[in-house]
Amino acid sequence: RPLRLGLIGSGRIGAVHAANLAAHPGVDFAWIADPFVEEARRLEARYGAAATDSAERVLEDGRLDGVVICSPTPTHVDLILAAVQRDLAVLCEKPVDLDLARARTCRTAVAGASRPVMVGFNRRFDPSFASIRQRVAAGEIGRLEQLTIISRDPAPAPEAYIRSSGGIFRDMTIHDFDMARFFLPDIVQVTARGSNLFSDYIQAAGDYDSAVVVLTAADGEQVTITNSRHSAYGYDQRLEAFGAEGMLSAGNSRPTTVRSYTSAGTAQADAYEPFFLERYAAAYRAELDHFLQRVRDGAWASPGIDDGVAALELAEAAVESADTGRTIAVG
Amino acid sequence: RPLRLGLIGSGRIGAVHAANLAAHPGVDFAWIADPFVEEARRLEARYGAAATDSAERVLEDGRLDGVVICSPTPTHVDLILAAVQRDLAVLCEKPVDLDLARARTCRTAVAGASRPVMVGFNRRFDPSFASIRQRVAAGEIGRLEQLTIISRDPAPAPEAYIRSSGGIFRDMTIHDFDMARFFLPDIVQVTARGSNLFSDYIQAAGDYDSAVVVLTAADGEQVTITNSRHSAYGYDQRLEAFGAEGMLSAGNSRPTTVRSYTSAGTAQADAYEPFFLERYAAAYRAELDHFLQRVRDGAWASPGIDDGVAALELAEAAVESADTGRTIAVG
Amino acid sequence: RPLRLGLIGSGRIGAVHAANLAAHPGVDFAWIADPFVEEARRLEARYGAAATDSAERVLEDGRLDGVVICSPTPTHVDLILAAVQRDLAVLCEKPVDLDLARARTCRTAVAGASRPVMVGFNRRFDPSFASIRQRVAAGEIGRLEQLTIISRDPAPAPEAYIRSSGGIFRDMTIHDFDMARFFLPDIVQVTARGSNLFSDYIQAAGDYDSAVVVLTAADGEQVTITNSRHSAYGYDQRLEAFGAEGMLSAGNSRPTTVRSYTSAGTAQADAYEPFFLERYAAAYRAELDHFLQRVRDGAWASPGIDDGVAALELAEAAVESADTGRTIAVG
Amino acid sequence: RPLRLGLIGSGRIGAVHAANLAAHPGVDFAWIADPFVEEARRLEARYGAAATDSAERVLEDGRLDGVVICSPTPTHVDLILAAVQRDLAVLCEKPVDLDLARARTCRTAVAGASRPVMVGFNRRFDPSFASIRQRVAAGEIGRLEQLTIISRDPAPAPEAYIRSSGGIFRDMTIHDFDMARFFLPDIVQVTARGSNLFSDYIQAAGDYDSAVVVLTAADGEQVTITNSRHSAYGYDQRLEAFGAEGMLSAGNSRPTTVRSYTSAGTAQADAYEPFFLERYAAAYRAELDHFLQRVRDGAWASPGIDDGVAALELAEAAVESADTGRTIAVG
Repeated sequence: RPLRLGLIGSGRIGAVHAANLAAHPGVDFAWIADPFVEEARRLEARYGAAATDSAERVLEDGRLDGVVICSPTPTHVDLILAAVQRDLAVLCEKPVDLDLARARTCRTAVAGASRPVMVGFNRRFDPSFASIRQRVAAGEIGRLEQLTIISRDPAPAPEAYIRSSGGIFRDMTIHDFDMARFFLPDIVQVTARGSNLFSDYIQAAGDYDSAVVVLTAADGEQVTITNSRHSAYGYDQRLEAFGAEGMLSAGNSRPTTVRSYTSAGTAQADAYEPFFLERYAAAYRAELDHFLQRVRDGAWASPGIDDGVAALELAEAAVESADTGRTIAVG
Repeated sequence: RPLRLGLIGSGRIGAVHAANLAAHPGVDFAWIADPFVEEARRLEARYGAAATDSAERVLEDGRLDGVVICSPTPTHVDLILAAVQRDLAVLCEKPVDLDLARARTCRTAVAGASRPVMVGFNRRFDPSFASIRQRVAAGEIGRLEQLTIISRDPAPAPEAYIRSSGGIFRDMTIHDFDMARFFLPDIVQVTARGSNLFSDYIQAAGDYDSAVVVLTAADGEQVTITNSRHSAYGYDQRLEAFGAEGMLSAGNSRPTTVRSYTSAGTAQADAYEPFFLERYAAAYRAELDHFLQRVRDGAWASPGIDDGVAALELAEAAVESADTGRTIAVG
Repeated sequence: RPLRLGLIGSGRIGAVHAANLAAHPGVDFAWIADPFVEEARRLEARYGAAATDSAERVLEDGRLDGVVICSPTPTHVDLILAAVQRDLAVLCEKPVDLDLARARTCRTAVAGASRPVMVGFNRRFDPSFASIRQRVAAGEIGRLEQLTIISRDPAPAPEAYIRSSGGIFRDMTIHDFDMARFFLPDIVQVTARGSNLFSDYIQAAGDYDSAVVVLTAADGEQVTITNSRHSAYGYDQRLEAFGAEGMLSAGNSRPTTVRSYTSAGTAQADAYEPFFLERYAAAYRAELDHFLQRVRDGAWASPGIDDGVAALELAEAAVESADTGRTIAVG
Repeated sequence: RPLRLGLIGSGRIGAVHAANLAAHPGVDFAWIADPFVEEARRLEARYGAAATDSAERVLEDGRLDGVVICSPTPTHVDLILAAVQRDLAVLCEKPVDLDLARARTCRTAVAGASRPVMVGFNRRFDPSFASIRQRVAAGEIGRLEQLTIISRDPAPAPEAYIRSSGGIFRDMTIHDFDMARFFLPDIVQVTARGSNLFSDYIQAAGDYDSAVVVLTAADGEQVTITNSRHSAYGYDQRLEAFGAEGMLSAGNSRPTTVRSYTSAGTAQADAYEPFFLERYAAAYRAELDHFLQRVRDGAWASPGIDDGVAALELAEAAVESADTGRTIAVG
């Protein structure tokens, strides 16, 4: 029988999950909850799941198998705990919480959960990154030695978002921290540098618009992360895994394979996919698939709350490193 | 309200249309007909549309808006005519018929149809080819002068298929003829050469396994088509549009953007998509979308039966040219 | 000891050979002959070889090992024969002659030459094309089945040149005919189509500005050649060798590896090398090297006069095919 | 008149300069000095310049315009000073010296030199890197914000070389430090991390085989450098300049444009050029050209001793940073 699921939160990312829940043959998409019920109603009209302004109403359904949580970050921990108490499976958007202590408390609380609790680090499910991960694990490039991650947003988030984001390391680099841990789970040192190169309001908020992070893993493996809050040529998401016997790289994706040749230059390709909704569309579908399989087979769902906490720990260390100019030991 | 549609034929390509019909929010997917009703039942179990062994049953539904025809080629014309008689819209897989006279009769018969009749030349809806077509039409490369089409199947169809296929020009090149006409509708000359390079059973069937065609359009524009019934590196579908002011090319698509760098070589990409189901997945969805829009707005659906007939005329000329070593005038 | 060589002809291509002769450690570059002695004197000033207005003076040197002939086409045969009579090795620019009968006479006359006589089909020495040839010969892609050659000049030659060029097939396609024979020496059928798409003065001269040729080799292998006398994006010289087990392709070369990413598009590369002097610079050096080795070891130099004649025979057949719309048997 | 030049040092890199000096039309290549005179004699036989075992003999020539110094690093400063005393122009291989104090003394001593003194940071003259530098300077990508440099050697140098190399930062990263300063001359902070991932003898020598460096420039611009002493896929030399309005990247070069397509994968290119002699062949020629122009016009030759000192200062800071885990202020 299909798994009965509810969606909590109907914003930008909630709409992505709603479409995937509706299209999945293994899902009975039952509920969409949002205090701004108008948005939930729009999704109800499109996908048939019942709209409500109360997350509680969803959790109390009685026949539900699980929830997908896309509400604002400060509500995550309470909703996760409430769902776990009712023996519901959980797929919660990242981050678990911006407060590390609270995230750790959540980790402890869900430790004995009867059903999978999963954190939405969607990039692990990107077909290109996942393929490299699998090929590295299969030994194709020998021992992994250096990992290069470049991650740039097309344009800075609005000022209000920046002010409540927890800063570039907790909000943006957090994905790259998780990607680093996807390949090298045991990070032992964090060195970070932040700069203010183009955005006055990001600087005014006490945050950086550009950042570089160097991580060292347990056996000395090196990771570099390069971030920027803008990118004139679109969403820039790349990764190179360098090993003793070769390298595997993943580039950006484009809507078509068309190339243009003129007197101005040759082989010009399309602009990249504009942002994460387009770039990671396949990743969100694969993530949901993975979650559903775990719910069915009762196995531990990866990435879990512990991964969410670990990424946040790296973000905390990056903040400290950028502030002090010191390399910070972690783990 | 959603458009109520039935599917006739539940084979390989029928399954593609079934999935797209089921997933489309604007479609009420009502029927799946196939004399081999077991296959239709399998799709019914997955997508909910009612299975039947009778196409007649579908056509007699009474509330239907249209049908998608994926049955064997010899049944196409009768089904198209039966649907048009009942004022149903039609999306019919190519070719209209292998017999040119019969295809022309069909063209005449549907001339006054009350609803759109469309032929499934799916490649027109491939995002890359469609993008080039639109950019050429917008004048980006000036006057179009030369069109290069390379089209190779991964492996030859089985002997039985080959024997009833009508030959490489009517069965395989037909897509490329339509692609040529997508850019240059008025073809006036056809020169074709066929070879037998690797398949004994294709030769025994009196057919070619490799072919080259040169088309000349009304103002002298040149088209070359290169075909092979096999390709060690996967499904090979490429196009270059060369104009007075530049060139636009479209290449093959791959599942990921991963590249491999080893001592054996650099930048090795994935194998190409294995065959048309994967390569043209987006094209089939866009084709269905286009058809639905035409049904809704009542406009003429392109490509139509006339395009199906025109492509078949080019195939006939190619057969004659390959047999005689002469350039054949058409149009 | 270095080989003592003279250069006859100091035009555009003569200047290329002069630079290579001067830079080669195995060459004693002795003479530069040109009736327009001013040009020869300019090269003398740069490279030290003695300028003269008399080719005869060079041939009578007495200590010479060979000559490089870059004079106008109508003088080629006489100079080749005069050099062979004096037991000099010859590297002569293509074509041997525009008149097939005269070229054949030359072939007969040099048959017993004591030293190598070589024709300057420089593209055989292009590192990319030569690499593909060698890898195909090594069996890397199995049996060669289809060869795709695209060859476009950046801009049409001036009217006077066109009028004395012998037409696109003898002047431009001749290189592609030789490239086809480099891979598939036994061509048995020629089909050609010419068009007038952009140049009034080429049309007025009774010539085509755009051409497509299909060749069939002895065992049915297929070659397509696409030519244009202009190309907005620079000199376009590409080749694909398709075989039973794979494909090898060679693209155009660029001055740098730089790629540009902006809001207008991604991965835009440099314009291609402007024309043959830049694109085939390495090929001209490798050609000279090959010639010198053959002079030293006394072996037959390939490509020879027979290759020059064979390419011209294909050009003649292409002219006839384009005029009559018939496939022409050759060989 | 040609410039009369002598070469001091006839090792691996001396042989590169010898070939370029011999081929350059503007050079009278007079001397090759090396205490191991056999090697100098081999070059004399090939290029005609007189071999000697005494650098002094070269400096005392009396008619010399300048010297190219490729002797072992510890001899650089003395030879530079001796040449400057005799009013000779100098092109000296990097580094100036491994001892920063000594390099600074040299900088002071040559401050009033009558002729150009240039340091051989050859990568500034690589056509791709130089093109990006010029396009960035022209404003093509707006303000430069982040620079990504990846630089990996094909295989570690022998143990004896490593032991006298001064360590990875002074020996290998020094090129990347100069490349960073080529784009962003005012570096103010250095953060470096070294690892021992594959070479026992490098570790035994107290050196790292893998390194990552983060530089911050005066206005906050960020530079990341990734180094490895091995690379299974060949010499890896890449650069990306990211700016407010776009990005320019330069990749590795290959001997041909050939791509291979098989069942194993698609578009596989050649292995990269094996090492710096092949990869930077054009750069060495352009460097010599630049030096000769500066000698002729009497202008300051860039990069100069001050650039050599500045790169060494960054290397010193990197050593300290890697040792202490602190970000080091420089400049």
